[in-house]
Amino acid sequence: MKVLVIGGDGYCGWATALYLSNRGCQVGILDSLVRRYWDSQLGADTLTPIAPIQQRIQRWHDLTGKTIDLYIGDITDYSFLSKTLRAFAPEAIVHFGEQRSAPFSMIDREHAVLTQVNNVVGTLNILYGIREDFPDCHLVKLGTMGEYGTPNIDIEEGYITIEHNGRKDTLPYPKQPGSFYHLSKVHDSHNIHFACKIWGLRATDLNQGVVYGVLTEETGMDELLINRLDYDGVFGTALNRFCIQAAIGHPITVYGKGGQTRSFLDIRDTVRCVELAIANPAEVGQFRVFNQFTELFTVQDLAMKVKSAGISLGLDVEIDHLQNPRVELEEHYFHAKNTNLLDLGLQPHYLSDSLLDSLLNFAIKYKNRVDPQQILPRVTWK
Amino acid sequence: MKVLVIGGDGYCGWATALYLSNRGCQVGILDSLVRRYWDSQLGADTLTPIAPIQQRIQRWHDLTGKTIDLYIGDITDYSFLSKTLRAFAPEAIVHFGEQRSAPFSMIDREHAVLTQVNNVVGTLNILYGIREDFPDCHLVKLGTMGEYGTPNIDIEEGYITIEHNGRKDTLPYPKQPGSFYHLSKVHDSHNIHFACKIWGLRATDLNQGVVYGVLTEETGMDELLINRLDYDGVFGTALNRFCIQAAIGHPITVYGKGGQTRSFLDIRDTVRCVELAIANPAEVGQFRVFNQFTELFTVQDLAMKVKSAGISLGLDVEIDHLQNPRVELEEHYFHAKNTNLLDLGLQPHYLSDSLLDSLLNFAIKYKNRVDPQQILPRVTWK
Repeated sequence: MKVLVIGGDGYCGWATALYLSNRGCQVGILDSLVRRYWDSQLGADTLTPIAPIQQRIQRWHDLTGKTIDLYIGDITDYSFLSKTLRAFAPEAIVHFGEQRSAPFSMIDREHAVLTQVNNVVGTLNILYGIREDFPDCHLVKLGTMGEYGTPNIDIEEGYITIEHNGRKDTLPYPKQPGSFYHLSKVHDSHNIHFACKIWGLRATDLNQGVVYGVLTEETGMDELLINRLDYDGVFGTALNRFCIQAAIGHPITVYGKGGQTRSFLDIRDTVRCVELAIANPAEVGQFRVFNQFTELFTVQDLAMKVKSAGISLGLDVEIDHLQNPRVELEEHYFHAKNTNLLDLGLQPHYLSDSLLDSLLNFAIKYKNRVDPQQILPRVTWK
Repeated sequence: MKVLVIGGDGYCGWATALYLSNRGCQVGILDSLVRRYWDSQLGADTLTPIAPIQQRIQRWHDLTGKTIDLYIGDITDYSFLSKTLRAFAPEAIVHFGEQRSAPFSMIDREHAVLTQVNNVVGTLNILYGIREDFPDCHLVKLGTMGEYGTPNIDIEEGYITIEHNGRKDTLPYPKQPGSFYHLSKVHDSHNIHFACKIWGLRATDLNQGVVYGVLTEETGMDELLINRLDYDGVFGTALNRFCIQAAIGHPITVYGKGGQTRSFLDIRDTVRCVELAIANPAEVGQFRVFNQFTELFTVQDLAMKVKSAGISLGLDVEIDHLQNPRVELEEHYFHAKNTNLLDLGLQPHYLSDSLLDSLLNFAIKYKNRVDPQQILPRVTWK
């Protein structure tokens, strides 16, 4: 199976590319490397020292004998994208190639526009590229659980059956995204749904929760294969960020009361979910939505778990409740379904003390690389 | 009341600008004139000979003594938009300034991307401009009834209360738009809703039906004030297009069976609806949605009405059922609410024989300007 991983130099993308390669897929990576550029613009850096993509791929080849094709360029440039698709001829495309940070999109007008244009145009181009040359190719697109917001009813997987005034229909689940980034994913979902309907494309939207963890079997094989781990206020996500804060003796930064419930998954489940989606493709004309997470936690719960794991390792861990830089409910109902991927065979890695220990130890190993100036949130929604 | 009409050189925008000026508003027009440029690129032209915007405004001043400020530029250029807002200091912004043709957006990838980037970025810029300098300014945004698609349940005005698994919430109405243009309006709606929530802006989304008619009290005052009337396969909409076809002896072009039900309104109601929205602004932080139409017809019904009016004027009118260039249901349930504007005092102009007669006579008057090559649809959805 030939799989093109767009955004294959990123956190989820790199782990996915190696995993699929290891499982026997013929993998290509398409990446513009703009995320590394944004890091340098923001003065941020991954906790872990990641190698250049060319070295990463070379090392993977040296270790395993497996080849990953590399295409460096931007999918908003259609001529590059089209040429790449024709050269690689994918049977499935895994699309991680978007600006994926909510705070980044809320920095200012320019970053909001950049995020929406980059994400929407990139995805439109992929849809046209598939339609043009590979109409049977299965698009596996990374969405986000944040597309749903926090409705006061159960969250279904992409669609909801509504009875209203004595009639009934199954319609796209209403969306209430919470940042210009999350909005861009909602725009994508609508665009992809339409393309499936009119052109008969096949697509799976993976509405992913917050991913944590750093090691997969493949990225742990060698220091040159190490994955990125973000802890800064723009790209760092809960749990990973909390562990790094605990490791360096910085208080854990909970936004507001921390009663926000979010969905989470281990990066080892991310790569497996993508594999399951590829192995069980959507039908012709089908726009399929999977909610890709394994557990729900409040932010305060997570902070408490990290604190307790830290204490058992002898760390002195404090929890700080910062004024919430985001506009979001801090107390709300949240119950989301996630049976589609479980039904396909996903066996979750649940968050455990041992995982927290290993994440904390990982953070301790690289703690001399932390820039404390990067930790606190500097972007506000208001 | 100072009202900035963005897209004030267009079909709805021009009629609205003059109407509001006549009713005592201080009106500014912001327009890039790109629609005239697209017409020339497509080789299309309005049936009616419209004057340059500068002459239009001058003539309006000469006839009425009223001044309309003119700002020529593109709202996707934020520095221009911001400068204009500061110069004019609007209390309300009426935003017609988008690419508004579904077939135009479906021509090819470039037109799909152009439509979405133009519309989404323009609206994002307006939101940031309001937030920056005029946070109390009321945004009246033109949406479309096409955002809803054709669900098998009643269409409410923007929101729907859903009971699900024993819980209840009022959520954004699910959207199933039918072209990359209609999708751009859905993206806008989500973006505006979010901006109202986080920044406390006030906005009204007017989900407008298909507009017909050419004369308003103001545009009928003088030949130099005449409004545009599109009949071509890209920008011409049902009814207006049908009348022009009947006037020149071209068969009326119904797509497919013509069982598609759509919502319609007279352009004299468009201008009144905008006035009502402005006079009754949304609350701080409120994203309000009005379904702006007065009647529902199937496309086949409309064709029959035009045929019968034509025959009474001695015209020989045929109806052709073309292969549908769009992907849409030709038989479906459609029942949409429109009470919000009626409750504010809208008194509809219903489609009547006299209106059809006057539209047909108008079309006959200018029929020597018709280019028959422009009539048939040349853009397909597949």
